[in-house]
Amino acid sequence: MMWLSVPADTDFSIHNLPFGIFHTGDGRPRAGVAIGDHIVDLPAAADAGLFGKPRFFKKVFGQNTLNEFIGLGKPVTNRIRRKVQEWLLQPEAPANAAQLLCDRRGATMLMPVSVPNYTDFYSSIEHATNVGKMFRPDNPLLPNWRWLPVGYHGRASSIVVSGTSMRRPWGQIIPQGRETPVYAPTQQLDFELEMAFVIGKNSELGQPIPIDKADEYIFGLLLFNDWSARDIQRWEYVPLGPFLGKNFGSSVSPWIVPLEALKPFRVKGPKQTPAPLEYLQQKGRQQYDIDLEVAITPGNSGQETVISRSNTRYLYWSMAQQLAHHTVNGCNVQVGDLMASGTISGPIPGSYGSLLEMTLGGKEPILLPGGISRAFLEDGDILTLRGRAEKDGVRIGFGEVTGWISK
Amino acid sequence: MMWLSVPADTDFSIHNLPFGIFHTGDGRPRAGVAIGDHIVDLPAAADAGLFGKPRFFKKVFGQNTLNEFIGLGKPVTNRIRRKVQEWLLQPEAPANAAQLLCDRRGATMLMPVSVPNYTDFYSSIEHATNVGKMFRPDNPLLPNWRWLPVGYHGRASSIVVSGTSMRRPWGQIIPQGRETPVYAPTQQLDFELEMAFVIGKNSELGQPIPIDKADEYIFGLLLFNDWSARDIQRWEYVPLGPFLGKNFGSSVSPWIVPLEALKPFRVKGPKQTPAPLEYLQQKGRQQYDIDLEVAITPGNSGQETVISRSNTRYLYWSMAQQLAHHTVNGCNVQVGDLMASGTISGPIPGSYGSLLEMTLGGKEPILLPGGISRAFLEDGDILTLRGRAEKDGVRIGFGEVTGWISK
Repeated sequence: MMWLSVPADTDFSIHNLPFGIFHTGDGRPRAGVAIGDHIVDLPAAADAGLFGKPRFFKKVFGQNTLNEFIGLGKPVTNRIRRKVQEWLLQPEAPANAAQLLCDRRGATMLMPVSVPNYTDFYSSIEHATNVGKMFRPDNPLLPNWRWLPVGYHGRASSIVVSGTSMRRPWGQIIPQGRETPVYAPTQQLDFELEMAFVIGKNSELGQPIPIDKADEYIFGLLLFNDWSARDIQRWEYVPLGPFLGKNFGSSVSPWIVPLEALKPFRVKGPKQTPAPLEYLQQKGRQQYDIDLEVAITPGNSGQETVISRSNTRYLYWSMAQQLAHHTVNGCNVQVGDLMASGTISGPIPGSYGSLLEMTLGGKEPILLPGGISRAFLEDGDILTLRGRAEKDGVRIGFGEVTGWISK
Repeated sequence: MMWLSVPADTDFSIHNLPFGIFHTGDGRPRAGVAIGDHIVDLPAAADAGLFGKPRFFKKVFGQNTLNEFIGLGKPVTNRIRRKVQEWLLQPEAPANAAQLLCDRRGATMLMPVSVPNYTDFYSSIEHATNVGKMFRPDNPLLPNWRWLPVGYHGRASSIVVSGTSMRRPWGQIIPQGRETPVYAPTQQLDFELEMAFVIGKNSELGQPIPIDKADEYIFGLLLFNDWSARDIQRWEYVPLGPFLGKNFGSSVSPWIVPLEALKPFRVKGPKQTPAPLEYLQQKGRQQYDIDLEVAITPGNSGQETVISRSNTRYLYWSMAQQLAHHTVNGCNVQVGDLMASGTISGPIPGSYGSLLEMTLGGKEPILLPGGISRAFLEDGDILTLRGRAEKDGVRIGFGEVTGWISK
């Protein structure tokens, strides 16, 4: 029985309790746990003795990132989460309720972690096939795709939190009918619907993480928008992969949902053919049933339209497989690293995770209410990703990651 | 007139004065400046009042990375370097000489910077052509290559300092005559001879760095060995670029040579055809005349052999062009970022910067004294890169970056 009332449809139920970094206009960043329309102020909770060692935890939660907290390890982070849960699950409001709670709607969310390294995978077979057809019509799914979770290193410095505006990037693009590039603003600005996991434990250089230990290294998940400039990407990406078509910015949702909160939503992933090599073989339910949606609010209207609905269960490669593969050569991971899934597209057009796929490379613009259409994103557009899982009355949401395109 | 005697052939002359992080067995990492066979202990120099603000600089130089120091900006870092130079250029040994100097041969060098982001370019036209022929015989130099400095993001976490052993990575490789991969140790372990520059100033997300301001953002240079597993790389690299074939480790030399020390060695780069787009157009001498060499000491002999001699002047794209391109889309850079050149190959076989090129993909092993040959690196081999510039009696060296292959 919870003494605090939360809206029935909240993303941040008592089963969720995600961690984030916020301030309340006082310029004092600190850690919090989202619950309904409130935030449990963790330095205040530490100060009130909720976790023991008040001075230690007040310092840990007074940082402007969660890295130090996450780095304490799952026994500690799970204990803190349970303590918050117990504090909320009392029959009567505790005397220190007002002191420990903030209004979530009055809070500004900041980047939850400092990101030492960012990797982007390419783990949706539908996305890889759809995009492959456009970039390489004869050869959409390359021979390695079903053998390993293809991935590449992205840029950590330009990852920003939801609500940050995204400047339309300039770069080299080949105008239609020309063979040489011009320097111009991208004409094919796109989003990518992704989820990312946050590394919660350092590994040693030279020591692979076995697939059955992967969960020990995954602290939690968030929504990830891998903004992409398709015309820049198409020209630059051979032979070493995407660079300026991606690294002008990526956006994350501010609340990290702990892996433990997602346990009820584990499902079997798709059958993998051919069978993966031994180091990629996993047991049990390794995918998650999380509904995702993409919404656009065109700059020249005030109206939001949902343009895609997808689900993380469509992913071919699991997080455990991604992590086992990433480290099989001895590459080390660090607390705060982000590993994104790649665009999560479903099997039908209404479930695609990028405009590139929805509009067939811009050739068939999507139609929005009010006679508005979009081949790619225009200045002033707002793009929002949301994620939510629900089962047997338990609901866990990710909030949203939103971004506004500026000139 | 310098009171301290330095060996005539030292890399670390009075004209050089590179910065690094060291300890002397006491487990106390600190910043230093190399001079001949000595190191000027910077916290001790700060304490002695050499730079003013003793407490402030003692703290800055007592860190285990140079990031905070470098982030103070060139007016400060150049002033510190001049103060060290003045202290060394006295006719008589100062009273505090013993207190400020350490024996360099008794010091252990550590990573000079914490690396927030690492980018690897591909800026040698000889290397791109040589490798392109092997990976894509019909299409060695792709159409974008002469229009932009091709680059990709690498892994920052696995960059280690010279002297760290490198574990032979395992991964997916396709054995000869098969079409499907096996999980095995790489059979094609290689090095890449590169230089990297260290970013000395943060830029703002969304704000490109104009090419004529690039030098303001470059603190200095070091030697960079981009270890590569060619069989892993060949199978994985399409379509998103190199990943596990590279991210098991890269090695850097411990001393960062400030850009200012390299001024006398600036030379014109090769003529660029077609003319670059305006944002990549530069004036003046934008390349550097730095002699490079690669030496191998096979594990089954004790004898070092120089197997390649190259020079940074062969690079087609300059550092200023790399940085202007990297940020033209608004991507931000951070103090401590490393940007590597890509393999620096010269026009003839004796100047190639990788075994891949020297041995034509392993088909023509190189012969070493004692009847030893190498197609790729074997366990126990030691690989060393060195760099040095010399003109009009001024000599600036980079020391070396060395690595030992372990099983």
